Amino acid sequence: MPKNVGCLSVLNDLYTLILGDDLRERSRLVNSNEKVEINHGPTLVIHGGAGTIVRENYSVQKEYLDALKESLMAGHRILLSGGNSIDAVEAAVRIMEGCIKINLKINLLFKSEFTFLCLIDCPLFNAGKGSVFTIGGKNELESSIMIGTSNHPAGASTLLHTVKNPITLAKTLLLDPENPHVFLGGIVAEEYAEKKGLEIVDPSYFWTKKRWKQHLEGLEKDNNNYLEMDSSPYPMGTVGAVAVDKNGIIATATSTGGMNNKKDGRIGDTPLIACGTWADNETCGVSGTGNGEFFIRYGIAQDVSSRMRYLGESVDEAAYNVIKNLGKVGGGGGVIALDKYGKVAMPFNTSGMYRGYIRVSDGIPNVYI
Amino acid sequence: MPKNVGCLSVLNDLYTLILGDDLRERSRLVNSNEKVEINHGPTLVIHGGAGTIVRENYSVQKEYLDALKESLMAGHRILLSGGNSIDAVEAAVRIMEGCIKINLKINLLFKSEFTFLCLIDCPLFNAGKGSVFTIGGKNELESSIMIGTSNHPAGASTLLHTVKNPITLAKTLLLDPENPHVFLGGIVAEEYAEKKGLEIVDPSYFWTKKRWKQHLEGLEKDNNNYLEMDSSPYPMGTVGAVAVDKNGIIATATSTGGMNNKKDGRIGDTPLIACGTWADNETCGVSGTGNGEFFIRYGIAQDVSSRMRYLGESVDEAAYNVIKNLGKVGGGGGVIALDKYGKVAMPFNTSGMYRGYIRVSDGIPNVYI
Repeated sequence: MPKNVGCLSVLNDLYTLILGDDLRERSRLVNSNEKVEINHGPTLVIHGGAGTIVRENYSVQKEYLDALKESLMAGHRILLSGGNSIDAVEAAVRIMEGCIKINLKINLLFKSEFTFLCLIDCPLFNAGKGSVFTIGGKNELESSIMIGTSNHPAGASTLLHTVKNPITLAKTLLLDPENPHVFLGGIVAEEYAEKKGLEIVDPSYFWTKKRWKQHLEGLEKDNNNYLEMDSSPYPMGTVGAVAVDKNGIIATATSTGGMNNKKDGRIGDTPLIACGTWADNETCGVSGTGNGEFFIRYGIAQDVSSRMRYLGESVDEAAYNVIKNLGKVGGGGGVIALDKYGKVAMPFNTSGMYRGYIRVSDGIPNVYI
Repeated sequence: MPKNVGCLSVLNDLYTLILGDDLRERSRLVNSNEKVEINHGPTLVIHGGAGTIVRENYSVQKEYLDALKESLMAGHRILLSGGNSIDAVEAAVRIMEGCIKINLKINLLFKSEFTFLCLIDCPLFNAGKGSVFTIGGKNELESSIMIGTSNHPAGASTLLHTVKNPITLAKTLLLDPENPHVFLGGIVAEEYAEKKGLEIVDPSYFWTKKRWKQHLEGLEKDNNNYLEMDSSPYPMGTVGAVAVDKNGIIATATSTGGMNNKKDGRIGDTPLIACGTWADNETCGVSGTGNGEFFIRYGIAQDVSSRMRYLGESVDEAAYNVIKNLGKVGGGGGVIALDKYGKVAMPFNTSGMYRGYIRVSDGIPNVYI
């Protein structure tokens, strides 16, 4: 177990809620009646999906942890150079959607070591390249992005088959002054992406052996096996990022391929503002992962923010309580949340959640499963 | 002006917030420090859209008021006979989506009066028959429905061209034990509807002269005239209903054709749980109407519920405050909201909102513009 993760509470037979240092720190402060608001400065927090995570395979674990670090570093470089939070979360999510920058070291015979920076496709996470399949054998992608300024700008897309980086489409929708809409779906969204110069790929680009195997296994088990997604194995891999930049502006990005063997045409929580994604500078940014139907039916992402706004809870209290309540009604998953002071919360009620954070103040990528 | 509507507050130069009797009653109670919780019993509240409503044409006004009454009576009959709230809101919305039952009285010569019950298509509201057109000249319909029990069941659909009653599709999705998803969009949703025996129509069924004229006028004015939907004229006509039944169970239904000359593929707030629709027995049911992008970006429907849950506000206080805040950020629209005691709130910040309510206790349809 990573050293700074503590098991705080057994919720019921099924769910255990695990949080990071921040809540323990807060509990200490609350218990001692201290009131301290530390400003951590620009911070990025990411997740790569919550679910039933098999921890035995250490080489696979390392692969995921390395990818999380790459994602953190991509966003961190932007925050470090004074960039804004929307660019940071986009960059972090794009890494998990497909492109990983790797340093390829080659020792040439009798010569010194050469290092190359390479871009490869990263099919680890269930977003972009590496997305799960629908029951009809397609990859149907969706995404959303939101900024926490008072006008709450947001962009979202769904039912995508050809847009290489759905998160960039969401960002483009948000930033396009000629686009009056938050949310576009289907072929029109794809045509819009192409018109805006985003990278378009053949649907076969998203095909991966691992996910196709999961798809076929699901079909064999039960024709309606997407029903089983409510229990183990959880639909792992939805990815997300929340960042706060030097101006205290929060941005949140979430991207996914959805649930394995979901019905074609199913729209999940990821592109739904208030359910899978939220950002409000006055409260927090939130990105969710887990059983999407629960995130929709309980408006999970916005609920974290509402608890902060109306109950005066801190970001870690609010996120903790929302995920605790989610577990009580049988919903599996987790959120990452971040307030304007850079305080991070990463609660989940599943056996694991790929996650991590990095602060400009020290530049150390902290990653956990 | 209807007799029981009072202008409570001028919010700014643009917006006036108008509420019904309930808030005045509450204010009186609060002011006199009384604490009374009256249980009004089974109640249905509906809206037929908020916006800039021209009041000069009295015959048109009467047509709308009659349609609202028909909608109320359709739901009322179900509540009166002990039926449940989901059937009541579906019935009320179906009337506004297309079919109106009318009593046709004919005086035959020298004979007594005969009364026929007729079904006609009602193109008054922007939902089902009577929906506005996309910029591409299509009718793209969407809907959602939700029940307030602790498991928060919900169903939603979008990007529909052939489903005669989108609200019935949302209800079918919700009630179908074999459907694991909340939200389906596009052709798959239509195929599902057909498979479930719902009435399928040719897309031309939704064509109406009035809406086509609005579509063409919009195109002439500006190629990107959907941008103007943020200001007058508001996208009138989204319809919705909230009911509480004899068991104290709240259900909410919302259906729409969206914004006039919206982009094809645009998904609005109507099918988005937490944004356009919400139901929670412990707080309230909410259905929204107005500028959908604002309802998405501020999670309007859920926010009413959150204010009740976390701030302890009553349904009318919460709904009033949310619509007041919506106006402050430039969003035009309104909500209907209803708590488990049958207390009704119908605030809006536009010049009008088609709306009404009926209680089983007296059976009187109260309708307003």
